Amino acid sequence: MAYNLLKGKKGIIFGALNEQSIAWKIAEKCYEEGAQIVLTNAPIALRMGEINKLAETCGNAPVIPADVTSNDDLKNLLTKSIEHFGGQVDFILHSVGMSMNMRKNNHYTALNYDFTHKTFDISAMSFHRVLQLAYQMDAISEWGSVVALTYIAAQRVFPDYNEMADAKALLESVARSFGYQYAKKNKVRINTVSQSPTRTTAGSGVKGFEGFISFAEKMSPLGNATAEDCANYCVTLFSDLTKMVTMQNLFHDGGFSFTGVTAEVIEQMEK
Amino acid sequence: MAYNLLKGKKGIIFGALNEQSIAWKIAEKCYEEGAQIVLTNAPIALRMGEINKLAETCGNAPVIPADVTSNDDLKNLLTKSIEHFGGQVDFILHSVGMSMNMRKNNHYTALNYDFTHKTFDISAMSFHRVLQLAYQMDAISEWGSVVALTYIAAQRVFPDYNEMADAKALLESVARSFGYQYAKKNKVRINTVSQSPTRTTAGSGVKGFEGFISFAEKMSPLGNATAEDCANYCVTLFSDLTKMVTMQNLFHDGGFSFTGVTAEVIEQMEK
Amino acid sequence: MAYNLLKGKKGIIFGALNEQSIAWKIAEKCYEEGAQIVLTNAPIALRMGEINKLAETCGNAPVIPADVTSNDDLKNLLTKSIEHFGGQVDFILHSVGMSMNMRKNNHYTALNYDFTHKTFDISAMSFHRVLQLAYQMDAISEWGSVVALTYIAAQRVFPDYNEMADAKALLESVARSFGYQYAKKNKVRINTVSQSPTRTTAGSGVKGFEGFISFAEKMSPLGNATAEDCANYCVTLFSDLTKMVTMQNLFHDGGFSFTGVTAEVIEQMEK
Amino acid sequence: MAYNLLKGKKGIIFGALNEQSIAWKIAEKCYEEGAQIVLTNAPIALRMGEINKLAETCGNAPVIPADVTSNDDLKNLLTKSIEHFGGQVDFILHSVGMSMNMRKNNHYTALNYDFTHKTFDISAMSFHRVLQLAYQMDAISEWGSVVALTYIAAQRVFPDYNEMADAKALLESVARSFGYQYAKKNKVRINTVSQSPTRTTAGSGVKGFEGFISFAEKMSPLGNATAEDCANYCVTLFSDLTKMVTMQNLFHDGGFSFTGVTAEVIEQMEK
Repeated sequence: MAYNLLKGKKGIIFGALNEQSIAWKIAEKCYEEGAQIVLTNAPIALRMGEINKLAETCGNAPVIPADVTSNDDLKNLLTKSIEHFGGQVDFILHSVGMSMNMRKNNHYTALNYDFTHKTFDISAMSFHRVLQLAYQMDAISEWGSVVALTYIAAQRVFPDYNEMADAKALLESVARSFGYQYAKKNKVRINTVSQSPTRTTAGSGVKGFEGFISFAEKMSPLGNATAEDCANYCVTLFSDLTKMVTMQNLFHDGGFSFTGVTAEVIEQMEK
Repeated sequence: MAYNLLKGKKGIIFGALNEQSIAWKIAEKCYEEGAQIVLTNAPIALRMGEINKLAETCGNAPVIPADVTSNDDLKNLLTKSIEHFGGQVDFILHSVGMSMNMRKNNHYTALNYDFTHKTFDISAMSFHRVLQLAYQMDAISEWGSVVALTYIAAQRVFPDYNEMADAKALLESVARSFGYQYAKKNKVRINTVSQSPTRTTAGSGVKGFEGFISFAEKMSPLGNATAEDCANYCVTLFSDLTKMVTMQNLFHDGGFSFTGVTAEVIEQMEK
Repeated sequence: MAYNLLKGKKGIIFGALNEQSIAWKIAEKCYEEGAQIVLTNAPIALRMGEINKLAETCGNAPVIPADVTSNDDLKNLLTKSIEHFGGQVDFILHSVGMSMNMRKNNHYTALNYDFTHKTFDISAMSFHRVLQLAYQMDAISEWGSVVALTYIAAQRVFPDYNEMADAKALLESVARSFGYQYAKKNKVRINTVSQSPTRTTAGSGVKGFEGFISFAEKMSPLGNATAEDCANYCVTLFSDLTKMVTMQNLFHDGGFSFTGVTAEVIEQMEK
Repeated sequence: MAYNLLKGKKGIIFGALNEQSIAWKIAEKCYEEGAQIVLTNAPIALRMGEINKLAETCGNAPVIPADVTSNDDLKNLLTKSIEHFGGQVDFILHSVGMSMNMRKNNHYTALNYDFTHKTFDISAMSFHRVLQLAYQMDAISEWGSVVALTYIAAQRVFPDYNEMADAKALLESVARSFGYQYAKKNKVRINTVSQSPTRTTAGSGVKGFEGFISFAEKMSPLGNATAEDCANYCVTLFSDLTKMVTMQNLFHDGGFSFTGVTAEVIEQMEK
């Protein structure tokens, strides 16, 4: 069922790799709700992924490659998007994260700091880059809405999440800091959505992911939120109905964040 | 512009007194978005207010008086609502608060505890009463949504807010505690919306309200959220797009909650 | 090892029932650190408990019965304490909590509201009563320190903790609200200490306490904090070294509060 | 007055530049409380500063230069400290921060990312470096205590604080993440202290610092905490009395963090 919540709106979606991606579902849902979209991902991800399939189902959305650590690429993305849309962008989804140390199996107590720098650059500072360029180019319309996906490891320790926890804390801080600036300039709102662990290509890369996702399921009174659920929620945040919500980290997790323990977990403890 | 976001949904709205009331705006907006509603307030408030006008604009919504401290009244309200709707309720808005000590000009360091008990009973435990009765009567449909309005004084001290700060902290705790229980039973979600200070009959009763609302305006990067903005936001929370959001306290305040200071406030400090 | 951290200080300790009580350990430790103390508890608790033994080991501390819901009793306690000390009180420990609904095995979804009122009155508003009387009688010395013990159920749901979760949320709000007022009046600081679950007479009354305390142990990187640990920590908060800490809820829990999951818990999940 | 709270303990203090430095006061206080210390700072800071004066008053403490972005320097620091102490280190204070973009007057919406990388490397990742090396070298004794100084801009926006807000958010995340790891390995605890704005050489570098510090003073029920107050507080955190406190961000700010507004600020608003 569609409501036309995003009718006439134009958005850029970062990070759709394949059908499991949260960004994929968000792109589909935004299109269903009436938005026009531009898709983007890293050149290498575009080669590996099946994004053209998504582009087709989203009204032949343009796919514009961009390395999120490159100002030139991001500038090109924004310029081309504005050209394509014939005007400013109304919303942006940032769903980008990659941990070099995890890939190399470096434990959190044995980080390679060049890798960490790269992790932060890709996973957190990329968000600042997009916002800073958009701010300077005046690329986002008044009352526009920007969302980045994050995870509760930014607040509490999930040991296997490694340096990504710190990257997400940084990302959320950037959302707040830039949220202030962009609200003042142009009433643009910036929030992060802290999503349940989700079986995506990225998520599955986390060590011990299965034990962990099942813990989250047992600890969430409504169960884990799916990628589809997240897409629905993001649509509300891009819509005109949430104009005064900004600088927030919004948990979308079936209640996990405010649950200390559940009957199911206690039971499991007694095994 | 309406989206039919609440088409087919049935809801109960507590606390609409007059056109300034946030609950009034929420009722109107829910109706516009396709919901059927039942209106309720305390018998005395109904006499003072203009709720029949609201009822008319909301498709002749029934107005059922209920003292929120009376189990009998609340039971009657739920029973009649279910009869009227021909089935379970899909959403409930709780916008109820009253401080006896404020009315009597008792300072926070000179509380009358009988009054305080009454304040908590009306402003916070009423929410538990509604939920407990609904739970026992199975009055809310699966995936139903319940929202209570609150204020950031539950987290930080606003001295003139007096005992209502404690009442709101209690209210938010009830939302979390019952949110767990109702998620488990029937996937009902329960959240609080922490709204900017708003010029309502209730808000204006707070001492120093004007200085305070202007401080909030200066401290909110997007400015204070209005009652209409709040209505829009609540519609998203009652809709099917936010099913996995529960047990949260959601700030709807133009960024006030995560702003430490603004240029405007600093400037004012230097005067 | 003692440091004389509280040399010359005078304090009132609420809630020592028997050797398991956290308040018992705090009283002993304060005495060891050079403080003079007055002990108090409900008349019935005094009859059941072994407080005279504690009074002896604390330099024959006076034991003054007080029902914390009675202004007269509390007034008498403060008056007698000031007489005994020959001057104002420097610190107060509030370690009081009792849930009527738990005792009666009423589930959180089937509360008796008269009982709930009593629970809040004993467990949370008692703290306001003590502070309000002290404020009005000017019973606490400048830069005095007040601590109440609380539990993380005030922030996150632990289902078996029942209505005590709401009582603790209320207690913490009172600490903040009154902390502001008393700082302004007399530089008195007020904080809550959120302690690990502890095997006390009160704690053990919570249903499923054993499964729960073992979960907390597994979820705390340093393990659960003991009553002795808590006593040590409270001594620092009563000392002159923490004068600028106020209106805080301080987690004393071996890291539980900021741990999302541990290797041990994940392992247990896979069983 | 000294209590011998740190008798027999050995600690490393990062970041004492001159008498205004918080780290300077902490070093003095730790020494007064019976600790032996090693002082360290960047080579350039040592040349500019007056640290030898401090070294003298601290029992001729060794001064070991270390660039916090250099693993070799930090390794040398830890090795030499262990040699000097004849054993493991019991506590570490991290008081290090520098914003390249602030120095160059780059606004938060016009960051140079190479500078930002350097800011993060110096202000936040340096803490990880110290901890990672200590962890690998087993340089910290069981139940050791590590504290880093931070600021509330990590939680709420203070626009002039620029990229340091993000650096502090990262720092606090590192404290949590490593706090878990080090608790598990060796029961070492790691916390951050979020201090009132303080007139230090570093603090004064922030644009609009005066208007800002006066706002903080008016917003703190006990007033701003001084460097001396902070030193007292840190002593308690290094002592054996706070063994079960870990992974916390501890506000030491006269109540600023939980105050929404004060009478003084409202008054100023009405001017």
